[in-house]
Amino acid sequence: MQNPNGSSDAAAVPVLGRSASVPAPARIGDPLSEVDTPALIVELDAFERNLARMAAKVAAMRASGGNPALRLRPHAKTHKSPDIAARQVAAGAVGVCVQKVAEAEALVDGGITDVLVSNEVVGRSKLARLAALARRATLSVCVDHPDNARALSAAMVAAGATIDVLVEIDVGAGRCGVPAGEPAAALAQQVAALPGLRFGGLQAYHGSAQHLRTVAERQQAIAGAVAKAASTRALIEALGIPVPKVTGAGTGTFELEGASGLYSELQAGSYIFLDADYARNQAASGSTFAEFEHSLFILATVMSRPVPERAVCDVGHKASSSDSGYPTVPDIEGASYVGASDEHGVLRLERPEVELAIGDKVRLIPGHCDPTVNLHDWFVGVRNGRVEALWPVSGRGPGF
Amino acid sequence: MQNPNGSSDAAAVPVLGRSASVPAPARIGDPLSEVDTPALIVELDAFERNLARMAAKVAAMRASGGNPALRLRPHAKTHKSPDIAARQVAAGAVGVCVQKVAEAEALVDGGITDVLVSNEVVGRSKLARLAALARRATLSVCVDHPDNARALSAAMVAAGATIDVLVEIDVGAGRCGVPAGEPAAALAQQVAALPGLRFGGLQAYHGSAQHLRTVAERQQAIAGAVAKAASTRALIEALGIPVPKVTGAGTGTFELEGASGLYSELQAGSYIFLDADYARNQAASGSTFAEFEHSLFILATVMSRPVPERAVCDVGHKASSSDSGYPTVPDIEGASYVGASDEHGVLRLERPEVELAIGDKVRLIPGHCDPTVNLHDWFVGVRNGRVEALWPVSGRGPGF
Repeated sequence: MQNPNGSSDAAAVPVLGRSASVPAPARIGDPLSEVDTPALIVELDAFERNLARMAAKVAAMRASGGNPALRLRPHAKTHKSPDIAARQVAAGAVGVCVQKVAEAEALVDGGITDVLVSNEVVGRSKLARLAALARRATLSVCVDHPDNARALSAAMVAAGATIDVLVEIDVGAGRCGVPAGEPAAALAQQVAALPGLRFGGLQAYHGSAQHLRTVAERQQAIAGAVAKAASTRALIEALGIPVPKVTGAGTGTFELEGASGLYSELQAGSYIFLDADYARNQAASGSTFAEFEHSLFILATVMSRPVPERAVCDVGHKASSSDSGYPTVPDIEGASYVGASDEHGVLRLERPEVELAIGDKVRLIPGHCDPTVNLHDWFVGVRNGRVEALWPVSGRGPGF
Repeated sequence: MQNPNGSSDAAAVPVLGRSASVPAPARIGDPLSEVDTPALIVELDAFERNLARMAAKVAAMRASGGNPALRLRPHAKTHKSPDIAARQVAAGAVGVCVQKVAEAEALVDGGITDVLVSNEVVGRSKLARLAALARRATLSVCVDHPDNARALSAAMVAAGATIDVLVEIDVGAGRCGVPAGEPAAALAQQVAALPGLRFGGLQAYHGSAQHLRTVAERQQAIAGAVAKAASTRALIEALGIPVPKVTGAGTGTFELEGASGLYSELQAGSYIFLDADYARNQAASGSTFAEFEHSLFILATVMSRPVPERAVCDVGHKASSSDSGYPTVPDIEGASYVGASDEHGVLRLERPEVELAIGDKVRLIPGHCDPTVNLHDWFVGVRNGRVEALWPVSGRGPGF
């Protein structure tokens, strides 16, 4: 494999993780115009402002009615990067969340010491890997079924490890999770009795609420989640079992969970980048998370300008996930991304006189940040138009 | 990074390419039940029947009214795998197509000697890599603008290389391509005069026609493409410039281009796998490509069965592209995949009595094969329920 950096030895790049064997699309010091495309760009000034804003918001919630132990545990499924996770921890996060064992491995290998797998882990191979990891880091995981709790316990006992276990309750998303109330309390009791497991509290995440368009819809959804988590916690405590934490929330709702006084950890992840779908939330509702800024872009190159009203760029399905809509085009007035094929994106230009020639670079805002990041091997960190950092997407992949 | 194969030395896997440093989700000889998930499964019997069927179809077209020089040049954007490309060439393909320089590098590195980049290549770095590759393999590429042709020529001259250049004409897809007729003939004349370039003929691919639902719609679209390509060829030949080939077609239409007598190369790629979207074409129209079989599946694990009517599996947006709809569930009567989040897929079970427990494996047919393959690092080749081959997706990535 030819390395576009000019070196034929990709292994010389001194970084960890799965993506590190793939050449990066830029070199430190390159101007943005020299970055090869498609590339995932992090505008570092905006990124750092998002880091600082979230830290300030969590501190303010802690000081004014929120849980006095409230901490941020940002979701690293968004970025899968130990480099970014380390910056979140340095800004005050207690640790991070991930969804997959492979992501947990990438983050622990990259130096992160406190990781919650905010998901069920199923299968002998994955449970053995989780147990091995629990011997090297502060690890926690979710369960929603006694069979899974027993298999997890057996894997921990076999490895001589112990893990904190959160009972996941379905607070309205209709995905995983045991029903709130008695079934959740019964499962907590089973977990507390199993060797190798420590009952760590409740996972109460309302995924579908994150993308509801209006503040009122999100308030109603989270009020329901808080009520379910609170009553479940009371039932478990009535059994004499302490409930050390209640964890959940995302970028669309974290201020609601944070203000509840019930949640002790907030799992917002997308705040660090935002995306076009969250921007539509902001536009629809004057959302309170409007202070966060887009810091993540896909850099594209114009490959063809067949007619004045159309330009074709090199970012299609394989460089930008379209599950939450197409990317937006923030820098060119009247330009919109109107069609994707696997390796092409079609831009419609309302102002055909716009100067956009073959070879020109265009910044796109991805429709949905998490699955778009997963298509790339590198973040290219840019400040004042120059490449300052190259961070591998170390936990990239389907997550087996 | 822990290797789920039980080895900590991923580099010991004796294969080439970008993905080879990522652990595979299985070992040779494993039963399907032991393959870790999410995994991309190739059912080798069906795959080999697809290979043989396409070879027979092209031979039959060549013998009965098609271009006597007609050859298959399957599109490797579907699989990005030298292992699969080699099997296509062994079955009679003249070479393969790709869309990106990075894919061409992966295939040439993997031993494929004749590669058409069926796309425009833009930018100094990519053109230099293309020129370096043209010194090692029979390479061809498309242009649709004189500026790009001149930049390509300069890169070839600088490297002391020569490349075959196809003029891409827009035959109705409204993506890249110079207009058919006089503008295309003028560009062919310019290409023929530039050093380092050999005019190789016409790229006349109608991408959007591949997914039209009925045979009649596809016939009308391809009749238009054939007319445009034929008149353009005549204009170029009238200038005294030979037109060595006309290339195009995909799995949805290749029998129409093949029967035209005009096309000398067919670029069908998806035929090797099919997908749920092509299956909907078959269902809608009794399509003539109905003899191809699904050979590609995503293997998922049930992570949660919160209520009898719902199971949640570990395949979401990060393991299955949803740009052409959700996966289908071929093996479980009454089951449908009704919702994806990044790392989860929700299955609705019309027959709640179905035995589907946490840990059970489920085969899914991807909605769209190409971008789904791009989410994975390995193909797991299976025959009679056992793993027989592990092929890396060597050209995986956004394609910079």
